[in-house]
Amino acid sequence: MTAYTATVTVRLKHGVLDPEAETTKQALQRLGFELSALRSADHYEVDLEADDTAAAEQRADEMAERLLANPTIHDYDVSVVEADDAQ
Amino acid sequence: MTAYTATVTVRLKHGVLDPEAETTKQALQRLGFELSALRSADHYEVDLEADDTAAAEQRADEMAERLLANPTIHDYDVSVVEADDAQ
Repeated sequence: MTAYTATVTVRLKHGVLDPEAETTKQALQRLGFELSALRSADHYEVDLEADDTAAAEQRADEMAERLLANPTIHDYDVSVVEADDAQ
Repeated sequence: MTAYTATVTVRLKHGVLDPEAETTKQALQRLGFELSALRSADHYEVDLEADDTAAAEQRADEMAERLLANPTIHDYDVSVVEADDAQ
């Protein structure tokens, strides 16, 4: 078993309203920053032990599917690195 | 001016309690998943126009410093890609 860190990023699907991101964007513009769009996402870093990268990725994918993301409104992506390489 | 997408990831500093992540971890364990730790973070994708990558990175860094992160409890990192390469 090797230690891996899986990163799951959960984004709202295109077209789903994100009032929090809109508010953040307007606050930045009021501070004088120029930007054309801002999207927010949830980011999870999961430490887990698995036999290989594929197994770790599959487990993280199931976690996203069952709990971290709501498939009706969210897209997600998963990336896995060995724990020593993780930040 | 070129279009860039800056990704700002805002994490709680080591040692700052994160009850939301702890709850998520326990919920995953109750579902039968094996994991040793879970950290959550906020993830912002900012579309902006800038002269070059360095200018885009500096502006995103200032946004994190002034609004997106609270330096007392957060660490953040910034990465910038040209918008065509972004997801």
